Amino acid sequence: MDTQQAAGTSVLPADPGALTPAEARAAFRSGLAVPTAGWSRGFAQANLIIVPRDLAFDVLLFAQRNPKPCPVLGVLDAGETSGPLLAGGDIRTDVPRYTVYRDGQKVDEPTDIRQYWRDDLVTFIVGCSFTFESALREGGISIAHIDQNVNVPMYRTEVRCEPAGSMAGPLVVSMRPVPASQVADAVRITSRYPAVHGAPVHVGNPHELGIADLARPDFGDPVDMPEGHVPVFWACGVTPQAAVMESRPALAIGHAPGHMLITDARDSQYLVP
Amino acid sequence: MDTQQAAGTSVLPADPGALTPAEARAAFRSGLAVPTAGWSRGFAQANLIIVPRDLAFDVLLFAQRNPKPCPVLGVLDAGETSGPLLAGGDIRTDVPRYTVYRDGQKVDEPTDIRQYWRDDLVTFIVGCSFTFESALREGGISIAHIDQNVNVPMYRTEVRCEPAGSMAGPLVVSMRPVPASQVADAVRITSRYPAVHGAPVHVGNPHELGIADLARPDFGDPVDMPEGHVPVFWACGVTPQAAVMESRPALAIGHAPGHMLITDARDSQYLVP
Repeated sequence: MDTQQAAGTSVLPADPGALTPAEARAAFRSGLAVPTAGWSRGFAQANLIIVPRDLAFDVLLFAQRNPKPCPVLGVLDAGETSGPLLAGGDIRTDVPRYTVYRDGQKVDEPTDIRQYWRDDLVTFIVGCSFTFESALREGGISIAHIDQNVNVPMYRTEVRCEPAGSMAGPLVVSMRPVPASQVADAVRITSRYPAVHGAPVHVGNPHELGIADLARPDFGDPVDMPEGHVPVFWACGVTPQAAVMESRPALAIGHAPGHMLITDARDSQYLVP
Repeated sequence: MDTQQAAGTSVLPADPGALTPAEARAAFRSGLAVPTAGWSRGFAQANLIIVPRDLAFDVLLFAQRNPKPCPVLGVLDAGETSGPLLAGGDIRTDVPRYTVYRDGQKVDEPTDIRQYWRDDLVTFIVGCSFTFESALREGGISIAHIDQNVNVPMYRTEVRCEPAGSMAGPLVVSMRPVPASQVADAVRITSRYPAVHGAPVHVGNPHELGIADLARPDFGDPVDMPEGHVPVFWACGVTPQAAVMESRPALAIGHAPGHMLITDARDSQYLVP
């Protein structure tokens, strides 16, 4: 980190993939607000959902009942702002951009949530499919949103999650175009990462998921779908935020889609044999 | 089931392994109270921990932080007495024997908990290592406690679990003697069942776990340790009960060790590739 960034001028690093997680979090703490795909190569990125303590059981149970979209990597106790997944960090400042919901309505997308913080807030750190993207690339599968330098496209589906208490909502998916000849490889590689969404939930037919138009994602950006490529859909950690929008708690905070927490855990920690 | 059992005379079936889960649960509902190892071959057995709603987040978070001893297979909402893992069953009667704790002290070991039931009780159904015993036997590894027709030996260790809120306690393990030549097979086979405790937590040295004498288990029965066999230890679903004993909630209910809920889930559902 150079002193300019430390002072908050939010300069995009020359090679974000080479930053340590602590350096990346410092860049975001200083105000940089960009999607994180490709940042801190080899380290796991994560979704956030932060709720008051009285909703925490419902959220954790929702995650237990919907492990593909909501694989919980860690939980910070009520009021805690740091933990082993972000050593020396601060969950209120270290994510590039947040989404704040009041009564299920998005009311703010700040780069810092200190003004919203309360001592009864419980933070859930949820696995993210960015974690297996390095493995996909090592397997020879290119990642369109990284190559095109945009945010991953995400879609609200018509598939319903298992509800839990007050939490109910649709499955949200991320999509990556994969050449037909590499779909089996993409399934095989990602199925070895069950803690970060694992194998795809659907291959090939967006209409079956209730997605009308791939070119109009509900979150993130559209990507080109080259001839001979198949849309492959993975469960997405924005799912708990979609449930928050339905369940309308007085306050809930998530990351902004694609703008993840970069953790100190290595991608390889979530690889199963 | 013959009519005698249905009437509550608690006759031990000739071949408990051949019973369907519903038949096994009916036998226990009628009052039969025996350990369940070897019952309903091919179907997953489970540990229970039942707590008031105000402790439910701590228990679920304890499980999330200690997934090896506490793999959650299902959760019944507050007051619910049945669910998809025990279709048509009743969690208050269908386990052969329960353990009731008040303020952390064991106060009863009934075969039925209807007298203790409250509408705010939340039931956690937790994976059990009996689930992978069929796979071990198919792999040519004999199971001492089944062959010797006793309850599996379980031990409180000096290893501490990650605490969660009010829940803190020691890791409890089950032990199976395995011939030295088959230890690697036992590890390989059980590691494919992460949802039911998975790979062993320790192989070979009980003293390192703080177990003074294998012949004196804390729960269950001792088994013979033949020459050339190695004690292999797996995380055990009695662990949350040990935490309940420490955290002393006003009321908590578990199964009696070794006396499991027999679920409608097949063992194979918990097998990963």
